[in-house]
Amino acid sequence: MEIYIIGASFAGISCALHARKLYPNAKITIIEKNTMVGFLPGGLLLYLQNKFEKLSDAVFVTEKQLEAQSINVKLSEVLLDCHPEKHEITTNKGNYHYDKLILASGSEQKSMNIGLEDDDEWDPSFKNYDLSNKILDQIQNAESIAIIGAGQAGIEAASTFVDLKKTVHLIEAMDYPLFKYFDPDFLVPFLSTLKQQPNLYFYLNTTVTEVAKDKQYEILLDGQTVVSDYVITTVNVHPQLAAFTKKFQLHSDNTIQVNDYLETSAKDVFAVGDLIHSPFQIRDESVYLPQINHATRSGVIAAENLLKQEVKFTGGLRTIGTKAFGWYLASTGLIEEEAFVYKNEIAVKNFTQPFSLTDKTTIYCKVVYEKSSERLLGMQLLSKADCLEKINTAALAIENNMTLDELMQNDHFFQAEFTNVMEPLNRINLESEDRHAF
Amino acid sequence: MEIYIIGASFAGISCALHARKLYPNAKITIIEKNTMVGFLPGGLLLYLQNKFEKLSDAVFVTEKQLEAQSINVKLSEVLLDCHPEKHEITTNKGNYHYDKLILASGSEQKSMNIGLEDDDEWDPSFKNYDLSNKILDQIQNAESIAIIGAGQAGIEAASTFVDLKKTVHLIEAMDYPLFKYFDPDFLVPFLSTLKQQPNLYFYLNTTVTEVAKDKQYEILLDGQTVVSDYVITTVNVHPQLAAFTKKFQLHSDNTIQVNDYLETSAKDVFAVGDLIHSPFQIRDESVYLPQINHATRSGVIAAENLLKQEVKFTGGLRTIGTKAFGWYLASTGLIEEEAFVYKNEIAVKNFTQPFSLTDKTTIYCKVVYEKSSERLLGMQLLSKADCLEKINTAALAIENNMTLDELMQNDHFFQAEFTNVMEPLNRINLESEDRHAF
Repeated sequence: MEIYIIGASFAGISCALHARKLYPNAKITIIEKNTMVGFLPGGLLLYLQNKFEKLSDAVFVTEKQLEAQSINVKLSEVLLDCHPEKHEITTNKGNYHYDKLILASGSEQKSMNIGLEDDDEWDPSFKNYDLSNKILDQIQNAESIAIIGAGQAGIEAASTFVDLKKTVHLIEAMDYPLFKYFDPDFLVPFLSTLKQQPNLYFYLNTTVTEVAKDKQYEILLDGQTVVSDYVITTVNVHPQLAAFTKKFQLHSDNTIQVNDYLETSAKDVFAVGDLIHSPFQIRDESVYLPQINHATRSGVIAAENLLKQEVKFTGGLRTIGTKAFGWYLASTGLIEEEAFVYKNEIAVKNFTQPFSLTDKTTIYCKVVYEKSSERLLGMQLLSKADCLEKINTAALAIENNMTLDELMQNDHFFQAEFTNVMEPLNRINLESEDRHAF
Repeated sequence: MEIYIIGASFAGISCALHARKLYPNAKITIIEKNTMVGFLPGGLLLYLQNKFEKLSDAVFVTEKQLEAQSINVKLSEVLLDCHPEKHEITTNKGNYHYDKLILASGSEQKSMNIGLEDDDEWDPSFKNYDLSNKILDQIQNAESIAIIGAGQAGIEAASTFVDLKKTVHLIEAMDYPLFKYFDPDFLVPFLSTLKQQPNLYFYLNTTVTEVAKDKQYEILLDGQTVVSDYVITTVNVHPQLAAFTKKFQLHSDNTIQVNDYLETSAKDVFAVGDLIHSPFQIRDESVYLPQINHATRSGVIAAENLLKQEVKFTGGLRTIGTKAFGWYLASTGLIEEEAFVYKNEIAVKNFTQPFSLTDKTTIYCKVVYEKSSERLLGMQLLSKADCLEKINTAALAIENNMTLDELMQNDHFFQAEFTNVMEPLNRINLESEDRHAF
């Protein structure tokens, strides 16, 4: 069996590795347009934080590891066309016959509406190694940086640059940052920290109308102009699509349509990761979930289904966890702001608890649940102590349709240095105007 | 309604606090034989580690917090007799009528078979404040300490004392430490660290036949004598029972029999925490689970059931997490060593993964699952990085009867600094002779 995978993204790599295990005799080839595999999307930031010695160390897998498992990697090769009717693909280097084809070319962060003259050349994102390497000097030398978009990538970039003593202009079209994952009321302590940053300038409810470049970049906003040494956009995640995609049925937002088994409209062609819509487990619809955790799982499930329909892809809950400006932030499932998308009435609870019996750092908790059934639908966590892993337990509780009553009894470890008497999940139902002393 | 709770243990306190919320007009009284409430069982160790400024700060709740919620606390008062037929109790200070009585007097760590002359006086455990305070000087001045029992409490004590540069003799009847929670093969890296401790002497497969005291303590083992400045026993956790308990139906090990709603054989009398047997969720039997997490939940559930049978107590999975000798150790559910107690055939998988993409510290993982259904039954984790919280997600997966296939798709956050590409739970099914590169 000849398996071709387009794109050495998280989805493509995880598909290749799992296919290797399932089909020991298959020939597996990954075609990647960049010059290396496995670069971490936030690798540039991690390198600037001294988490890696070299920029090229910021990888989740290496070409060598793949080759050790007999996975062929073709770098600097671009898919030009696709001929599902004869099971063939055309790249800039040749034609290949496939038995199974997996489209895993990922997404891009690029603002398409900025009228910069050399727009074709100028890609100010840092999702791949070549671009990150190209802009590294400019970033390091910049005294001021404008970041367009205050989602997870934008906030992580802002936090890193502020730590590096740069002046940061953070521009966001919505009225608060991280709006996909958190309710505005819940973020109050975090927003208060942002306001106290001397070198951080926040532009909310603000869209960029134009970016001009002279010696510096001039970013035209509604009614004002921001001048900075460099500009990064972190918005408009969208699939990396090319001409060939018209061979497949697409959604209106240009993602590729797949069934529960991640098969496209063309026989033996699968699509995964940021190219597709996926089930959002607590809603009755598919949504675009451009997340690494989700991409990885979709790659694994596509591998399971290459020969026959084995495992349905169950999608995700949009679970995130990150650290920015000294705060740990985590979220999973539904937030109150998007209650309107949920079929039934919801209710929320806000409460706090100390991180542990020896570390009294506050953990802020907010839960969203279905009012009638008291089934958990979403959780948000915020703390200056590392509480990130708790969000994974919450995600599993939501996936299992657990109610607040059931969660009251779920088992957890107790150790005074690392935990409180009960976990936040256990305490949701015990909470009532902070009367519970634990 | 007059509610009396015997014992300001975790079970007693959590019952009182939850009853306060459920029954705002009830009169709630806790009777406690010690001179303070809320002392942490390991408080002495945490104080010696400088986690608390004063020994008396090592508490999970204070008398003031309880009184602020109109919970009466009677200290230094001992239950002498119980008259269920007339709803009365007798203490050393008087007689009280109750409408509902909750027995929550907890357990003791005391070795009963040591022939020390002043055995009645000498209680070398550190579960309560008075005793901890009494032995504090002796512990601090001791250059050598013998610890009888290498369970969680014994290992935590040994780690603390070794850090304080004391010579430690650790004596254990079984052939490896922490045998309730871990398989011996899994602990190899941890045991290797123990062997490298210059001031730690390990006596395995060894029982204490006698303890004598001259200037120092002489601990007679099978064939040898250990001499130390102080002795602590951490074994023989057993219920604190007194004469009155013959009023209730008991199990053969002297725990009090309760039904699913934690009611004893006497009307309106409940028993919780370390006094009872509880369901062990993956076995078809009740077991003795003297754990704080479990005690707390049983107190909450007893409160739910005071007026009528509302919520069944679901027991626990014996989940633990701790840190000792630089290692984080966590376990939940079934271990391979006790496979014989499980009704069906089990299988196991061992694998490792780096803590995160920026921190390559190894996490050792072992899972136990049912062979036919591939349902997860147990997990053990060991690492020099803090991976403890992952055990709570595993516990929730076991409680929900999840299979390895289902776990492959469970959602989790990804952030290169804090996670790997996939979580251990997701990877169980992908593991095959370490071929998976993630």
